[in-house]
Amino acid sequence: MLAGTITIVGVGLIGGSIGLAAKQRRIAQHVIGVDTNQARLEKARQLGAIDPAGYETSTATSLDDVVIVCTPVDQIAGQVLVMAKAAAKGTLITDSGSTKAIIVHEVENQLLEGVAFVGSHPLAGSERQGPDCAVPNLLDGKVVVVTPTKKSTPIALTRTVALWESLGANVRLMSPEDHDRAIAFTSHVPHLLASALAGSLDDSLRDLTASGFRDMTRIASGDPSLWTAIFTQNRQAVLSGLDKLDDRLKEIAESVRNADWPKLTSLLAQAKKVRDALGS
Amino acid sequence: MLAGTITIVGVGLIGGSIGLAAKQRRIAQHVIGVDTNQARLEKARQLGAIDPAGYETSTATSLDDVVIVCTPVDQIAGQVLVMAKAAAKGTLITDSGSTKAIIVHEVENQLLEGVAFVGSHPLAGSERQGPDCAVPNLLDGKVVVVTPTKKSTPIALTRTVALWESLGANVRLMSPEDHDRAIAFTSHVPHLLASALAGSLDDSLRDLTASGFRDMTRIASGDPSLWTAIFTQNRQAVLSGLDKLDDRLKEIAESVRNADWPKLTSLLAQAKKVRDALGS
Repeated sequence: MLAGTITIVGVGLIGGSIGLAAKQRRIAQHVIGVDTNQARLEKARQLGAIDPAGYETSTATSLDDVVIVCTPVDQIAGQVLVMAKAAAKGTLITDSGSTKAIIVHEVENQLLEGVAFVGSHPLAGSERQGPDCAVPNLLDGKVVVVTPTKKSTPIALTRTVALWESLGANVRLMSPEDHDRAIAFTSHVPHLLASALAGSLDDSLRDLTASGFRDMTRIASGDPSLWTAIFTQNRQAVLSGLDKLDDRLKEIAESVRNADWPKLTSLLAQAKKVRDALGS
Repeated sequence: MLAGTITIVGVGLIGGSIGLAAKQRRIAQHVIGVDTNQARLEKARQLGAIDPAGYETSTATSLDDVVIVCTPVDQIAGQVLVMAKAAAKGTLITDSGSTKAIIVHEVENQLLEGVAFVGSHPLAGSERQGPDCAVPNLLDGKVVVVTPTKKSTPIALTRTVALWESLGANVRLMSPEDHDRAIAFTSHVPHLLASALAGSLDDSLRDLTASGFRDMTRIASGDPSLWTAIFTQNRQAVLSGLDKLDDRLKEIAESVRNADWPKLTSLLAQAKKVRDALGS
């Protein structure tokens, strides 16, 4: 048992999956859901991702509580601060946002009395949304980046790491800034690329797309507002990542334009090596 | 029964899958494999994708034969012409190449006596290779583009369409040139994009790639030589496709650079609409 109560704010794909895993692995005495969308909250209850309504208030616990804020990135800092005010002393708060620097610093610039906050980002997102898509093994073997700062206490950091590990994930520690730069290239830029590809497909060509095109554009089905919020919070790193990608794309295009086939083969071979190393 | 003998030249993923489907659906009396790689040929035999060695020569048939050339695109035209010389009168030859104009015109510029050729392209490729990856349902419900020209006889075209339909595919007719322009955007440009993304990933970021990055770069694991051959045969259309994509990517990058978030959301929303329409 890791926590008295785990409160999940935002019971969508990630929040719902955390709830299912927490219940299945019995890492808390109670799993409470909070969501502005009552239908989603009810759905999460039906699926067993959170405790039945009313149940959560019935028992005092001796273990410290945990709050995980799994809402769109532009709402996370505000919700962390609201939860901090309502939380019992000793509560650990973390989140699941795809950006970290702005969220972490906004939270740390406000005084949290008696509670601790450490930022987190489980690399387990999807173009799908909502508790219906939640699965208890979403985090199994996945990487969760935890982003401590100078202000993080060792105890809070240890608890944050233990939380994600108890949910089945592998934790990697990075500063919020390093996280944002890295994820800009591994997630945010790919999203823009997928969107550019899907968005420039002529209607007449839809029937001529096969698994390659579908795989490459799948994430373009993600929610535009959620993603725009991410880009507002990671603008510079995304622009740098786009530049980097553009350099490589230009090099490839030049080799095709110049019919420099040995050069093209070598660029393709280098990329294949990188991709093969990632596994399926 | 559609053919006396189906001869598959090149028993890799596509050729092997065609063999398995042809046997399972009993569309020919014999399925013969031809491959310069003896180990691959033996593997295809073991998997039941082609008939046992020696078996193929034992029976004369009353049905006309079919030859399907499933080799790298730069070898197809030459192999079609070789097979044409050896083929019985009335044989239909087709192929599975990812480019069509160069192959079709190279073949049609040579006189094929007593045999017919119509180009085909099953949209069922993969980054995987070899008969080990072959499956009998690879073509089920997939699109096969068949590319007749003025020189194609109605009978040859009808037989080509019937062949792919009997293997479970849906046929779409296009000119070789229209095919190449379309596939440049739905397959060849995405390949370069996947390759650019994988190729510009820093080693230190490998652990931070999740399913989105993996989906987007999967096809970058394709064989560099096979793909270079494709690009040599579809250079202009690929360059046009890259330009088109680049325009869209620039528009997206500009909206991020200018922090024009409503514009970015609208670009993402338009792309999501296209992608959602493609299905999973």
